[in-house]
Amino acid sequence: RIDGDRLWESLMEMAKIGPGVAGGNNRQTLTDADAQGRKLFQSWCEAAGLSMGVDTMGNMFMTRPGTDPEALPVYVGSHLDTQPTGGKYDGVLGVLGGLELVRTLNDLNIKTRRPIVVTNWTNEEGTRFAPAMLASGVFAGVHQLDWAYAREDAEGKTVGDELKRIGWVGEEEVGARKMHAMFELHIEQGPILEAEHKDIGVVTHGQGLWWLQVTVTGKDSHTGSTPMPMRRNAGLGMARLTELVHEIAMSHQPRAVGAIGHCDVYPNSRNVIPGKVVFTVDFRSPDRDTLDGMKAEFERRAPAIAEELGLGLEIEAVGHFDPVTFDETCVKAVRGAAEKLGYSHMDIISGAGHDACWVNRVAPTAMIMCPCVDGLSHNEAEDISKEWATAGADVLLHAVLESAEI
Amino acid sequence: RIDGDRLWESLMEMAKIGPGVAGGNNRQTLTDADAQGRKLFQSWCEAAGLSMGVDTMGNMFMTRPGTDPEALPVYVGSHLDTQPTGGKYDGVLGVLGGLELVRTLNDLNIKTRRPIVVTNWTNEEGTRFAPAMLASGVFAGVHQLDWAYAREDAEGKTVGDELKRIGWVGEEEVGARKMHAMFELHIEQGPILEAEHKDIGVVTHGQGLWWLQVTVTGKDSHTGSTPMPMRRNAGLGMARLTELVHEIAMSHQPRAVGAIGHCDVYPNSRNVIPGKVVFTVDFRSPDRDTLDGMKAEFERRAPAIAEELGLGLEIEAVGHFDPVTFDETCVKAVRGAAEKLGYSHMDIISGAGHDACWVNRVAPTAMIMCPCVDGLSHNEAEDISKEWATAGADVLLHAVLESAEI
Ligand SMILES: NC(=O)NCCC(=O)O
Ligand SMILES: NC(=O)NCCC(=O)O
Repeated sequence: RIDGDRLWESLMEMAKIGPGVAGGNNRQTLTDADAQGRKLFQSWCEAAGLSMGVDTMGNMFMTRPGTDPEALPVYVGSHLDTQPTGGKYDGVLGVLGGLELVRTLNDLNIKTRRPIVVTNWTNEEGTRFAPAMLASGVFAGVHQLDWAYAREDAEGKTVGDELKRIGWVGEEEVGARKMHAMFELHIEQGPILEAEHKDIGVVTHGQGLWWLQVTVTGKDSHTGSTPMPMRRNAGLGMARLTELVHEIAMSHQPRAVGAIGHCDVYPNSRNVIPGKVVFTVDFRSPDRDTLDGMKAEFERRAPAIAEELGLGLEIEAVGHFDPVTFDETCVKAVRGAAEKLGYSHMDIISGAGHDACWVNRVAPTAMIMCPCVDGLSHNEAEDISKEWATAGADVLLHAVLESAEI
Repeated sequence: RIDGDRLWESLMEMAKIGPGVAGGNNRQTLTDADAQGRKLFQSWCEAAGLSMGVDTMGNMFMTRPGTDPEALPVYVGSHLDTQPTGGKYDGVLGVLGGLELVRTLNDLNIKTRRPIVVTNWTNEEGTRFAPAMLASGVFAGVHQLDWAYAREDAEGKTVGDELKRIGWVGEEEVGARKMHAMFELHIEQGPILEAEHKDIGVVTHGQGLWWLQVTVTGKDSHTGSTPMPMRRNAGLGMARLTELVHEIAMSHQPRAVGAIGHCDVYPNSRNVIPGKVVFTVDFRSPDRDTLDGMKAEFERRAPAIAEELGLGLEIEAVGHFDPVTFDETCVKAVRGAAEKLGYSHMDIISGAGHDACWVNRVAPTAMIMCPCVDGLSHNEAEDISKEWATAGADVLLHAVLESAEI
């Protein structure tokens, strides 16, 4: 069993870096706070005897050697970056759970045949730079490195420049590593496990996603002196498209969700009719036809809404992944570990995207989930209990031991 | 007649200060660019022999003496501040038209019994600091000075601090000056004069306004893993309230307008359901019952929309003025001047708020409007012809001569 107190202490220590405004964290990717968090993680890993490799996307690979120099390693990990108003556990639990697993093996002097590599993937959240899971996507061959480097934040800064600025461009070619398997521990970020009173979610599938960046163009003009019939109000267009997204998602219940999280109004002045609104639609479903159908329906119906208001419309896909089916052997290792340890568990579909979803394309992969209070995540109030974290890391330990072979 | 070329040259010269991104201006109130614009105007006025008074709201009063030391002055003027993506003429024409009038009187060596005072009012636009027409509002006794000083921009900077920072806190008590009359020349900012092929709008009334700042509170949570029924989506609430504003305004056609110009989404991340949206509703009508009725209808119907989505709702009035009826004598002076000069003209209602609307409460006031291309304003592409500017300033000159007495 892992040491739950030690894991918790490390979680609390990491949460001091990039504090939020309401008890959570703002440690967005490739910021100074991200660099600081990486340094802390590196120092802990080195103290635990791990050696570091960093690839040119800044992904960190901390290796505990195995007894068989020829054997492919087993990977664990997740991400240390957070939302702008994020929680202390989203991502961090998977990385520090991996570190705790190694510390436990060290304490018990257990050697594994395969090396174990604890990983921190760069830019999982996708808030500052779309898309999410950017660096694991490059690793899995879904994105080109140059394309990833060119992603821009709202201020026009690029991933490549910011990675260099914080000093985390490594030497390794991205994706050159081969994996025997990869396990990611993560909080559920949804309400199901808590409601079902389960300690562990055995993640069998992941929802797919479409992110559509929508630009609605009207004409900025005076709110007082422009007669109603002459208006080309991009804000009204955005409102109607928000309703359309909601309607589409509701028509596929319960196997779909849809919302608009990000929305910028231009010029954003009280007495100017918005001339432009840029926003991102987030559609998800575990079912591929449903997912693609929602996107198609939006693309089919949105133009008429824009046209009726005299508005221009551009729709660009800025993020996408298909629904995922995780590796059967890895999933069994997770389920078996939960059973062996006596934790209550259930199969579950991940509502969020995760680095494991991309890695699953290039290596056998599975995920372990633990509950979170009220299903709340991407919120500074995100919370889990020490017992949930401990159970998750315990199951991670035993799934890895099964896969890495003692 | 005024010198249209000279007026136009001054307009172009002023437009170099605080250039926009698309040919217009970003010379928002109490910025460095505003300070620079004030300095330029001051230097021009002093070269024309005017003496400066500045009050504690930063309102600039540039005086050309009259022959009768006892006579109350006639005021002209408008504002030099602009929208963030504003035009070159909104406000500026009224200030520099006033300066041109003085230059013309100087050239022709014409003396008036009453002094003539060219005025630049602080923070007319109300974009950076709500409400609009802030300083003329203090002048007219509608707002308290302390309250005006405490207005904050989006970064939490106050009017008082910023006025001090740019060095334009004057000595005069705001509103201490007594006026014989005040005339404001302004572009129409709407499409009517151009459509009717009129050179001059004789402004008889002004629309009233309500600005309502609305805060919708939901719960920020994960867009992927939060089931639809568990969401409290403040963005969806904002969308429905946007539609409500539109519906209310449409139901009072053609004597009402309504829109949302300013809207901030929190935390504004692609994969976070908005936990909070703050936006400002702008309702206007020339008819007081209609205006107040729109506000009341919004306040009555909005709570049910919020409640249905499980959202909190706060509505705060952050700007208001009643519909205005301008002074009959002053309006007649404007109409008479247009007729005498042979300019085509029509009576018109101002769609926008203006400093003249507040000053009208404490002194006989009227406005002169000139057309603008496509009725477009609060847009960098705002445009007028030199002929329109010239006609407007000519009428201003003759209305002022009538009022200031030769
Ligand atoms: N787990 C997580 O929140 N990942 C970010 C990508 C997504 O929005 O699903
Ligand atoms: N003229 C003008 O645009 N004034 C600003 C106040 C308003 O929005 O009416």
